Amino acid sequence: MSVRVAVDALGGDRGPAAVVAGALEAVSDGVAPVLYGPEGLDAQGLGLVATTQEIGMDEKPADAVRAKRESSLVRACRAVGDGDADAVVSAGNTGAMLAASLLELRRLRGVLRPAIAVPIPAERGPSVLIDAGANADARPEHLLQFAHMGAIFAEEILGISEPAVRLLSIGEEPEKGNQLTLDAHELLAGSDLRFEGNVESRDLLVGASDVVVCDGFTGNVCLKLLEGTIKAVLDALRSEILSSRRGRVGGLLIRPAARGLRDRLDPDTYGGAYLLGLQGIVVIAHGNSSPRAIGNAIRLAARGVDHGLVRRLSERFPDRQPRAAAEVSA
Amino acid sequence: MSVRVAVDALGGDRGPAAVVAGALEAVSDGVAPVLYGPEGLDAQGLGLVATTQEIGMDEKPADAVRAKRESSLVRACRAVGDGDADAVVSAGNTGAMLAASLLELRRLRGVLRPAIAVPIPAERGPSVLIDAGANADARPEHLLQFAHMGAIFAEEILGISEPAVRLLSIGEEPEKGNQLTLDAHELLAGSDLRFEGNVESRDLLVGASDVVVCDGFTGNVCLKLLEGTIKAVLDALRSEILSSRRGRVGGLLIRPAARGLRDRLDPDTYGGAYLLGLQGIVVIAHGNSSPRAIGNAIRLAARGVDHGLVRRLSERFPDRQPRAAAEVSA
Repeated sequence: MSVRVAVDALGGDRGPAAVVAGALEAVSDGVAPVLYGPEGLDAQGLGLVATTQEIGMDEKPADAVRAKRESSLVRACRAVGDGDADAVVSAGNTGAMLAASLLELRRLRGVLRPAIAVPIPAERGPSVLIDAGANADARPEHLLQFAHMGAIFAEEILGISEPAVRLLSIGEEPEKGNQLTLDAHELLAGSDLRFEGNVESRDLLVGASDVVVCDGFTGNVCLKLLEGTIKAVLDALRSEILSSRRGRVGGLLIRPAARGLRDRLDPDTYGGAYLLGLQGIVVIAHGNSSPRAIGNAIRLAARGVDHGLVRRLSERFPDRQPRAAAEVSA
Repeated sequence: MSVRVAVDALGGDRGPAAVVAGALEAVSDGVAPVLYGPEGLDAQGLGLVATTQEIGMDEKPADAVRAKRESSLVRACRAVGDGDADAVVSAGNTGAMLAASLLELRRLRGVLRPAIAVPIPAERGPSVLIDAGANADARPEHLLQFAHMGAIFAEEILGISEPAVRLLSIGEEPEKGNQLTLDAHELLAGSDLRFEGNVESRDLLVGASDVVVCDGFTGNVCLKLLEGTIKAVLDALRSEILSSRRGRVGGLLIRPAARGLRDRLDPDTYGGAYLLGLQGIVVIAHGNSSPRAIGNAIRLAARGVDHGLVRRLSERFPDRQPRAAAEVSA
């Protein structure tokens, strides 16, 4: 049976046509995207569930989700909660996706806070950065749970067995860090994860670990800095090259090499980030997603369904609540 | 009169010869480096104050500084405290430099926490990242002070008049961030700084602001991620280029352009980071500093003396203590 993926047709900066094109790319024997968007949208033959509202990229997430229950974004999330779809993908407002997912798909039992897992295209192969922005403030016991969720993600989605886990900090020694990482380090060291200590941000793109754990503020700062720096370096190199005739000739010759690098580092390769810890598969694509990125995000979501990611997570959690959990979730 | 700069000859991964070479480079009418290191060191004709101990890169900072009061690092700091030098430069153990500076040079009156200011080689010109690692945990009132110190640094050392200040966060909107940035945003908005709101990390290398303020954990993560990513991208491009004959020919042609970019992004351009908020000028150079970097760090330190940076900071602080200061410094 095909995996049914609810796709928010109005998410993303490039408009619905790019989303529809991406959904078409993802169609296969095993994947059946269904679009959520306004009546009359050219769905190119794909299934369309008509919705009547739209959430903009700049709207305040919680307010927008409360006020627009019939928006394409909220309806696509609800489809998973209602069992009409197996997964949801949106390139829309990230905060609204967080809010709508929490509202329409409940948390898995034992999970204190859902977290965003993003595959980083490191040199030695992908690694998972978690949390990449769901929880701007987090506690040590949250980081321990993020580590468990990241490890399962690495196993099921990236195909890494016994993934190594490291904690992002400002020194490799256990005593380096802020209070949060010092406390989280202890919890991680006492867990049954394959915890290999702290990692510094300078090694993120080299591929220091299969799973890199941090709070959502730090993770989001890292993700955006990685993206911005890769782009700034390649752009600066291009303008240096174009500033001389010799450089221009050389630039033509290295174009295939540069393109290979751009492709490897391109966020579109994975297409999306997973929101983990909910009773359903949620993939949040980059706002500026190309059709290729949308297609990859849909395939990424389908992979989560195929691998029983939600079941795997739900098996791990109830018996691994840290002691402080009861107080925290109260 | 020349500025006397005490230089820790044993700081840095490349050994004393690299430090001595850098100090020689920095000698000029206005700059007189004095080396602190073991008797018998080949000081190439520069002044040498003999010291008897050494602090290694991996020693625990506080313990090492307490135990090794006669180390080159601690002695160089003490020289400033005692008035034997106008500034101190070390490429040694950063934590030990922090500890020794706090011990040997007291804080300026009104300053709650010294902070590390680092010039970032952004596309639109340098900007100052503060705090780049002195305070892994910080409070909103600390961030306000970092902003004031960063603004004075930008004025005096980078020559930027009326520097714009922005707060590093995970969204440009004031309501995006963690509790620390939300609270710091309010303090900054109410200050007499030229505060222009939040900035996202993706814009750091483009040059989003003259001064970028954050806590020391976030700043240190950003600094190392910037460094690591620039290196990883340029290295990856090189190996892509070298993997084909066409690429190799192109690589030769773009070499001058690539070198221009490397130079601009090279941390050696400034050579060091300032530790601000103390009764003296302290510059911490990169552990892996080349002679060129050491030379630039010494010149950077001398510039601070010439511009009366410490006096400028001391003028700004006593009357600008945030209300919570009394409680905090208690």
